[in-house]
Amino acid sequence: MENERLILVTNDDGYASKGLAAAIEVARSFGRVVAVAPETPQSGMSQAITMYNPLYLRRVHAEERVEIYAFSGTPVDCVKMAFDHLLRDRRIDLVISGINHGSNSAVNILYSGTMGAAIEGSFYGCPSVGLSLDDHGADADFEAATIYGRRIIARLFAGEIELPLCLNVNVPVGRPEELRGIRLCRQNRGFWREEFYRHEDPRGREYFWLTGAFINGEPDAEDTDEWALRNKYVSVVPVQADLTDYGQLQRLRGFFSAGSASEDPESQN
Amino acid sequence: MENERLILVTNDDGYASKGLAAAIEVARSFGRVVAVAPETPQSGMSQAITMYNPLYLRRVHAEERVEIYAFSGTPVDCVKMAFDHLLRDRRIDLVISGINHGSNSAVNILYSGTMGAAIEGSFYGCPSVGLSLDDHGADADFEAATIYGRRIIARLFAGEIELPLCLNVNVPVGRPEELRGIRLCRQNRGFWREEFYRHEDPRGREYFWLTGAFINGEPDAEDTDEWALRNKYVSVVPVQADLTDYGQLQRLRGFFSAGSASEDPESQN
Repeated sequence: MENERLILVTNDDGYASKGLAAAIEVARSFGRVVAVAPETPQSGMSQAITMYNPLYLRRVHAEERVEIYAFSGTPVDCVKMAFDHLLRDRRIDLVISGINHGSNSAVNILYSGTMGAAIEGSFYGCPSVGLSLDDHGADADFEAATIYGRRIIARLFAGEIELPLCLNVNVPVGRPEELRGIRLCRQNRGFWREEFYRHEDPRGREYFWLTGAFINGEPDAEDTDEWALRNKYVSVVPVQADLTDYGQLQRLRGFFSAGSASEDPESQN
Repeated sequence: MENERLILVTNDDGYASKGLAAAIEVARSFGRVVAVAPETPQSGMSQAITMYNPLYLRRVHAEERVEIYAFSGTPVDCVKMAFDHLLRDRRIDLVISGINHGSNSAVNILYSGTMGAAIEGSFYGCPSVGLSLDDHGADADFEAATIYGRRIIARLFAGEIELPLCLNVNVPVGRPEELRGIRLCRQNRGFWREEFYRHEDPRGREYFWLTGAFINGEPDAEDTDEWALRNKYVSVVPVQADLTDYGQLQRLRGFFSAGSASEDPESQN
């Protein structure tokens, strides 16, 4: 079947994670699957790329419609490896990143390797979906995430969409029948404040470990992903990569040329 | 001087880099300086955080108004360590991240450890400035970056600004008198396409190394940071952390509930 779709799967928890297997199950409903996932867990790796080290690729699984590769880089490295080398001559129809063990709502999107890979995928001219389950447990139940992931992707393939398209999908803990449906959202505003866990290592050197608490900056806003998750909805946030603060861009017009106009021809004033 | 300003300096090239010394020179014009910078180079680390390893902090330099710490984590870890532990009881007036060896214009902001740290700094209620010089060379001349960095920060302290404020400042190569001034910009749209350099290691295993080329998606747009840099302006892009694609949010209203309205109460429709 030359016309069969090709789905790229990646994640940040590594090629052997339970969440990757769940994402592959979702993907294989829609076509052939090639997974390129990190050799080791890469949670919190954001959109990092590997600049100083050589990277190794190995195929760890092959059957007729599913291949899995382990790559020794970051999640974004995996996406680049797939598009720019491994699958260079083939058309990729969709990127799925996940299913992540832990949610990536709100500001967590910025730290998330899952979403770093999903955003990278959207740079290659196909839709890209990051899927995360709000459960870090080893015995996490991926059934609802699988069902909703499949439903969302079926809609993408059935409907007309404009590219680039990247979705940050987060699924609450619960059985499928306990969830209240899909909710299109914006990213919640909030941030983390850290408590550094301090201890001494066996050689008497003090070490630190990040242990933070998320501060929801707008707990009552019902149009955010964080609200949706807390209220048992599957949150879907469309995501883009232009970080320009257009509000500040307006406010700062002329600001840096004030008092030194002759030296600083800030030409947009 | 109890009222003296306190400036936090960090970077992604590590505590011993020439660019950190240049950023400290900028910062000390405005107050006391505490630098918390990575123990090892962390270019391309984006907004990554360290989740799986203990982190070590050591003071590597102390004089009356300048202290430098090396921290074994990422650039974002350094910012968190400073705000949430080391300087927890003190008011920080400004974060400077840099001066980076290499520009962080356009989509490079997403991969940049320098800008990851700057964005993180802006979450703590003070202005934050990422400073980068468009020169990777070991003999890079930081003079223009230092002069313009000082000028931009002087304006921030002299003027009235609204928080959060995070600036992505990129300085072209050149002597100060060759530059054409400061230009307020938006982030250029573009992306990287990679050529994977392939070789065999001494044990005969094939390895890959990322070597990409930047594709400018809008080379003629004169309001972008990439254009400014190419035309010898110092680019200043105000940056924010909400990745929501509001255009897609509008277009996708109702999209995921179509055909399954009873199951998916997408309540914003």
